[in-house]
Amino acid sequence: MTRIDRDVATRAFNHALEHHEQAFEQFFIAKLLGFEISYPDDTCRVEFAVADFMYNPQGSLHGGVVALAMDVSMGHLLNRLQGPGATLEMKIQYLRAVRGGRVVATGSVLRRGSSIAFLESRLTNQDGELAAMATSTWRTSPAKPREPGLPRT
Amino acid sequence: MTRIDRDVATRAFNHALEHHEQAFEQFFIAKLLGFEISYPDDTCRVEFAVADFMYNPQGSLHGGVVALAMDVSMGHLLNRLQGPGATLEMKIQYLRAVRGGRVVATGSVLRRGSSIAFLESRLTNQDGELAAMATSTWRTSPAKPREPGLPRT
Amino acid sequence: MTRIDRDVATRAFNHALEHHEQAFEQFFIAKLLGFEISYPDDTCRVEFAVADFMYNPQGSLHGGVVALAMDVSMGHLLNRLQGPGATLEMKIQYLRAVRGGRVVATGSVLRRGSSIAFLESRLTNQDGELAAMATSTWRTSPAKPREPGLPRT
Amino acid sequence: MTRIDRDVATRAFNHALEHHEQAFEQFFIAKLLGFEISYPDDTCRVEFAVADFMYNPQGSLHGGVVALAMDVSMGHLLNRLQGPGATLEMKIQYLRAVRGGRVVATGSVLRRGSSIAFLESRLTNQDGELAAMATSTWRTSPAKPREPGLPRT
Repeated sequence: MTRIDRDVATRAFNHALEHHEQAFEQFFIAKLLGFEISYPDDTCRVEFAVADFMYNPQGSLHGGVVALAMDVSMGHLLNRLQGPGATLEMKIQYLRAVRGGRVVATGSVLRRGSSIAFLESRLTNQDGELAAMATSTWRTSPAKPREPGLPRT
Repeated sequence: MTRIDRDVATRAFNHALEHHEQAFEQFFIAKLLGFEISYPDDTCRVEFAVADFMYNPQGSLHGGVVALAMDVSMGHLLNRLQGPGATLEMKIQYLRAVRGGRVVATGSVLRRGSSIAFLESRLTNQDGELAAMATSTWRTSPAKPREPGLPRT
Repeated sequence: MTRIDRDVATRAFNHALEHHEQAFEQFFIAKLLGFEISYPDDTCRVEFAVADFMYNPQGSLHGGVVALAMDVSMGHLLNRLQGPGATLEMKIQYLRAVRGGRVVATGSVLRRGSSIAFLESRLTNQDGELAAMATSTWRTSPAKPREPGLPRT
Repeated sequence: MTRIDRDVATRAFNHALEHHEQAFEQFFIAKLLGFEISYPDDTCRVEFAVADFMYNPQGSLHGGVVALAMDVSMGHLLNRLQGPGATLEMKIQYLRAVRGGRVVATGSVLRRGSSIAFLESRLTNQDGELAAMATSTWRTSPAKPREPGLPRT
């Protein structure tokens, strides 16, 4: 009977419980999965270390977790650029199974209009190989000016 | 500062830690999210109760969790019918935000060929309304006879 | 060297040239492909006879023609229900090659909101088997009352 | 009543009738739409001039024609690299309406495996702006050695 590494999962859970806040970048799922979120060059980069508690029954990173990371990379980029949006749809292609290491999902904009935005995300494995490709369509909130001096959450 | 319900999340985590096994239906993520998996009438039904630890930063069920449940409903159905497969791609449309209650993702087969299978999944909210629609394409393992009398896991 | 049936193609072209009008149901491409469009039971049905001038290089109905028929079945349904929309995205799965006979694409609504609509379409071959499955997302025009007594084009 | 330019359509049709051959690059639809197909740098480039006979009822390039061009750019690239394949699925996002000018669909490989290939295609308008984005998944034929000296069709 295969079981996950209890210590790794427990540390991740306790860390998330302590440090989350239900806001962009800080929400519970993102903390549980150890997402490190940054915004280099008009992209959003979501990096995390694959752990066996994220596995599917066949012993690789679950496609739903891949979807989650890619969704976050696009939704956080859109939020950064324009304010929170709503995913209308997302498609993901799974090019390679991922079994470990650090992976990076990088979201970027295909086009941003006044009410609709189109984004893509590419997830690479530890060796920098493309492991998943996603495209998505979002309804954007009306762009509004932000108060100067306030950090973006 | 909004935080999740610690007790609900902790009970879910401890339950998953105790009762998971890295096999179909029993793997850690499925247990953490409380998936109840059954196979009525050539479909696979994944039912679970939405909890706030599954939320996105905007306070509704995260699209990645929706994707995960729908992926499971299709992958488990395929496994049941034919043995484990690999997702080549999945597309999800998000029709309605889900904020609570019990949701059900129901996977069904569009077509199963010898090496490729096409599936769909529909996720309904507590009121039975369609909240998400997914279609996906899978590479199937060569169908092989199963030992009689052995339960499928 | 394989060539198409000149007579069939020429008849289709001349028919389209004479009878088209750049409006819903009557536009040139729809006439060229022989689309018969009807609206039974809250769906839009696009029926046509496959001809070899619609083939791909491998001798079956081109995936792009399949896409076109399915797009028309969804766009025309939306137009009928609500006025003209714009396709944001469409995904098509190709389940079976189609080599001849009459095929039917049937569009239906997954959900229609005030500014966004989600639709699906299923294309069946001459034997009634599912040959292609599509889902799509549309931006809808603001619903406006229609003049009574005017037929919808 | 809006009608298409008869002369442009008739010239395109007669040209296709004379010059097509049901093979890669030369098949009837490709000739009718005036596709110019080339293979720069591991991509496949499909260029054509938008004409009003390719329009939807709303007066822009029909999404099905866009799908067709993008499908061709991916299928022809795959054929060039590996032999003919079959589209399992394709998703297209429509970023901008196209009303005229010369457009280019450029197909490229995301990953090619032994039995499955993942491709993308980007369609740009006359001003070089991204007007449509497609990704697709293909079943590839077993790679087989080609007879030396024979041109690839």
